[in-house]
Amino acid sequence: MARQGRRGQRKPRETGRFKQPPWRRISNPYKPIEVLREEQIEQIHTASLDVLENLGLEFLDGEALDILERAGADVDHASKRVRFDRGLITDAIAKAPSSFTIHARNPARDIVMGGNHISFSPVGSPPNCSDLDKGRRTGTYEDYCNLLRISHSLNIIHLISGYPVEPVDLPPATRHLDAYYGYITLTDRAWHPYSLGHDRIADGIDMLCIARGIDRAQIKREPSLVSVINTNSPLRVDGPMLQGMMEMVRNGQPPIVTPFTLSGAMAPVTIAGALAQQNAEALAVIALTQMINPGCPVIYGGFTSNVDMKSGAPAFGTPEYSKAALAGGQLARRYNLPYRSSNVNSANLVDAQAAYESEMSIWAAVMGHANLVMHGAGWLEGGLCASFEKMIIDAEMLQMMAAFLEPIEVNDATLGLDAMAEAGPGGHFFGTAHTLERYETAFYEPIVSDWRNFETWEEHGSQTATQRANGIWKKILEEYEQPPLDEARDEALKDFIARRKRDGGAIAA
Amino acid sequence: MARQGRRGQRKPRETGRFKQPPWRRISNPYKPIEVLREEQIEQIHTASLDVLENLGLEFLDGEALDILERAGADVDHASKRVRFDRGLITDAIAKAPSSFTIHARNPARDIVMGGNHISFSPVGSPPNCSDLDKGRRTGTYEDYCNLLRISHSLNIIHLISGYPVEPVDLPPATRHLDAYYGYITLTDRAWHPYSLGHDRIADGIDMLCIARGIDRAQIKREPSLVSVINTNSPLRVDGPMLQGMMEMVRNGQPPIVTPFTLSGAMAPVTIAGALAQQNAEALAVIALTQMINPGCPVIYGGFTSNVDMKSGAPAFGTPEYSKAALAGGQLARRYNLPYRSSNVNSANLVDAQAAYESEMSIWAAVMGHANLVMHGAGWLEGGLCASFEKMIIDAEMLQMMAAFLEPIEVNDATLGLDAMAEAGPGGHFFGTAHTLERYETAFYEPIVSDWRNFETWEEHGSQTATQRANGIWKKILEEYEQPPLDEARDEALKDFIARRKRDGGAIAA
Repeated sequence: MARQGRRGQRKPRETGRFKQPPWRRISNPYKPIEVLREEQIEQIHTASLDVLENLGLEFLDGEALDILERAGADVDHASKRVRFDRGLITDAIAKAPSSFTIHARNPARDIVMGGNHISFSPVGSPPNCSDLDKGRRTGTYEDYCNLLRISHSLNIIHLISGYPVEPVDLPPATRHLDAYYGYITLTDRAWHPYSLGHDRIADGIDMLCIARGIDRAQIKREPSLVSVINTNSPLRVDGPMLQGMMEMVRNGQPPIVTPFTLSGAMAPVTIAGALAQQNAEALAVIALTQMINPGCPVIYGGFTSNVDMKSGAPAFGTPEYSKAALAGGQLARRYNLPYRSSNVNSANLVDAQAAYESEMSIWAAVMGHANLVMHGAGWLEGGLCASFEKMIIDAEMLQMMAAFLEPIEVNDATLGLDAMAEAGPGGHFFGTAHTLERYETAFYEPIVSDWRNFETWEEHGSQTATQRANGIWKKILEEYEQPPLDEARDEALKDFIARRKRDGGAIAA
Repeated sequence: MARQGRRGQRKPRETGRFKQPPWRRISNPYKPIEVLREEQIEQIHTASLDVLENLGLEFLDGEALDILERAGADVDHASKRVRFDRGLITDAIAKAPSSFTIHARNPARDIVMGGNHISFSPVGSPPNCSDLDKGRRTGTYEDYCNLLRISHSLNIIHLISGYPVEPVDLPPATRHLDAYYGYITLTDRAWHPYSLGHDRIADGIDMLCIARGIDRAQIKREPSLVSVINTNSPLRVDGPMLQGMMEMVRNGQPPIVTPFTLSGAMAPVTIAGALAQQNAEALAVIALTQMINPGCPVIYGGFTSNVDMKSGAPAFGTPEYSKAALAGGQLARRYNLPYRSSNVNSANLVDAQAAYESEMSIWAAVMGHANLVMHGAGWLEGGLCASFEKMIIDAEMLQMMAAFLEPIEVNDATLGLDAMAEAGPGGHFFGTAHTLERYETAFYEPIVSDWRNFETWEEHGSQTATQRANGIWKKILEEYEQPPLDEARDEALKDFIARRKRDGGAIAA
C-alpha cells in the first residue's frame, strides 16, 4: 500500500531525501524540575491514602471486585465501592518494577521504561484528522495507515501508543484487527492494543505472538505491548477497562494507568486536589495490577489539566498543566514507578498557540523525567484531531529536546583556546582548523525550521512552518519503505484476522 | 499622541477592555536547570582566565587602556591588546554587587536585579517592524511610539531595554533625544539609553534626572538605566561602546555586558568553547567596570547561539542556544552576578516556528534563573524585525511562565478531600462548594489562546493565534492611557531636547 514515487522524475528544486537525526534511545542527564517540596509530596501521598481509606473507588467489574476482596480490600458488592487500608496499597505497589524493557518487533527498536530514559509516541485515539490539502475529516483506515507510515519514518518516534486516528470507516467489532495489522506491518515499533474489554487485548497478544514468532510464555517474560487504562474520574473504573487491564496484566504486559483528572470538572478545582485524586486513582489501579500478577510492569500516568471555568472546555499545555505534569513525575518517582506524560494543546490549527502549548507540555514532560511521552506528535484540538502537519512540527520540537539532552562536552579540545588564538581579536572562526574538523556535526540541523533571511525566504514563497511541514509529510510518504515481515507470519496474521472476523470480532463490552 | 477611542460607540461582539493578569514582580521558586556539572563550570572558568592571561582582549579606546594599565593589566598601546593576570580579574569582579534595585519613573515599577527575581523587557533595536495590516517596513518614530504604548500596556513588561524598533526616519545624531522622550512620556518603566559614545549616555542620564526630578548624586545611589555593552567578538571591545559604558559606570548605572558569541562564526564551533570565550569577554569588561567604579552594579549577559553551518546565518532558540543560556546562568551565579538572557527566534513570521524557538529560549532563560529576559516580547527574524503580533503572543507566553512560577499550594483546603466526597464516584466538581469558592481565580486566563471547540472556533472566523493577536494590539492602542508626567518636568525635557538639537546632538562616535 506504500505510495510509489521517485520513478526517475527530476525534482530540480528538491534537495533529496527527507533528512533527520538517526533513531536513538534518549535519556535525560539533567536533574528533574521539582515543583513540589519533599513535604508537599508527602502531603499529597497521605491525602491519596486518606481518599482510598475513607472514600474508596468504584470498580465496575465483578471479577475485579473479587480479586480486591481476596487481597484484603473492603468491598461493598452492592455499590461496587472498594476501600483500601493504606498498608494494602503501599505493599502492593512496592511489588511493581521500577524499570523494564519494552520489546519491539524490530529488536533495534526495544526501549527502556524507567530511570531517566525517555520515549516518544505519536498521538493516540483522535476521531478526526486534518491536513492542509484535504482539511478536517473523520478518520479512515487510509488516514490511519498514512499516519502510521509517517510515524514509522520519524526517527524520534520510539513506539506507537494508540491509533494515530480512529479508523471510523471500519466496523467497531473488528476494527482492532485491521488496526493491529497496520501497526505490525507498517511499523517496526512496539504498540498499543485497547483495553476495551477482554477480547481486544487477547487478540492483540495473539497477533503480537504471531508477528514476533513467540508464544505467550515468552511474551510474559518480554513485555511488548502497552495499553492505557483511564479511570472514569472521579473515583470510578469502568468494566471494559478493567477486563482489558486484567488480560494485559495476566500476560505480563504493562498497563499505563492514567486517571483523567481535569481540575474543575472531574477533579477538584485546585491542582493539589487534582493531584491527590490522580494519585489515589492511580495507586488503587496499580495496586490491583500487583494483586493479579505481582511484579507485573506498570506505568504511572499523569494527565491532570484544567478546564476553562467559563465554558467547561478542557485546556491543555496551560501553566497548571505544566506544574501538574512535573509534580506527577515527582509522585511516580516516590513510588519508583515509570512515568507517563504527554505533548498536548488545545489549538484548532497548527499555529503559534499549538506550538507554545505543546512546548509547555513537552518541557514539563522532559524535565519531569517522563519515561513515556504519549501524544508526542500530531495531537491537535485537545485530542480530537490528528494533524499531519502537526506531526512533523512535533517531530522537530521533540528532536530539538533530544539534542538539548545531549550534554555539553567540556574538555581541552572543545574549549577551543587554539581556535581563539587562530581567529584572534575581530577574526572569524569559519576557516579555523577547529571549525573545519567539526562543522558538519556541530549543531542540530532542523527538519522544519527555516533560518534564511527574510528576503531569501520571501523569494522562495514565504511559507509558514506549517506549509513546510505539509511538504515534508508528503515527501516522507513518497519515500516510505515498509519494514520487512516474514511471509509465513504475515499469512498467519491474515488467517488469524479472517478467523476472528468470522467469529464476529470483539464481543460488545 | 495617544489614539482616541471608545467615544461611546457600541461594539456588540467585543467583550470589553483588554484583560490580562496584573503587573507584578516575579521570582522563580524552583531550582535552576543545571546543564554543566560543578567541575565543568570550573573548567570553563579556568579556560576563560587562560584566554585573558595569554590571548587578552583588544580595547579600542585610549582612556579605557589607561584605566586598565593603572589597575595592573598588561597593556600594549600599539596593538591595544590587554592581557590580565587571573587575580586581577577575580579581585575586580568580586566587587560587583550580587543584587540591586532598578528604579523606574513610577516607583511601583521598580524591579530587583539578582537572586531568583526575573524581569521581562520588549524587543530591542530591530531596524524593521511588521504587522498583519501594513506588512514589513523600516521602523519609524510612529511605530516606535506605538510599540512603546503597547509595551507600557502589557503587565508582563517590567522595563524597556532598547528601542522596540529603530526610528529610522529620525536623524541619527538626535534620534536618541526623541527616543528617550518617548521612553519617558509613553511608559512609566525603567529604560535603556545606548552606549554608542559618551553623549547618548550623558543625555540619557540628564533626561532621566529631569524626568525623576533628581540630581546625578541621587541617580548614582538609585540605578535607573540599563545599557547593553556588546563585545565585538572575538576578543575585541569597540571605542563607542567603551565610552558609553564608562559614562554609565561613572554614574552608577548598570551595563549589561553581553558578548556576541555566535558559535561557529564569532566564537568556537563548540558550545564549551563559545562559553569559555563568552565568559572571558564578559569577565574582562565587568572587571573594567569595577576598576572605574568599585561596587558599581553590572549584569552578566549571555547571548551564545550558533550559526547555520551551511549558510552562516545566525540561528536562535536552537538546542545549543538553550544549553548555552542555561550554562550562562550557572557561570553568572558562580560570580554572584545578576544574569541576562533573551527570548529569541529566527522565524520570518509569527508561526509555529516563531513560537517553538521562542519557547526554547524562554524556558532556558526562566529555568536558568535569568534576572533580565531581554527581547521578551516582539522579536522576530533573529532580531531584524519587531512584530506587533509577536509582541502579544510573547506576552501570553511570558504570562504563562509567570503563572507556572506560582508554586502549587498544598494544604488541607487545597487538597479538597471534602470536594471529592461531595462529588463522589462518577460525579462532577462544577457545583461543589470547593469549586464555587475558587473558580474565578483558580486558573490562568489566556490572552490569545482560544480553547473553544473546533466548530465554535470555525463559526467565529477560524482565526489563527496571530490574527487574534492583531486584534488585541489594536484594542490595546485604542485603550492606551499615557502615564502622567509633571508638566514642569515635561517642559524641562522639551527644553533640554531643543537645546541639545541646536548643539547638533551626539558627536559622531
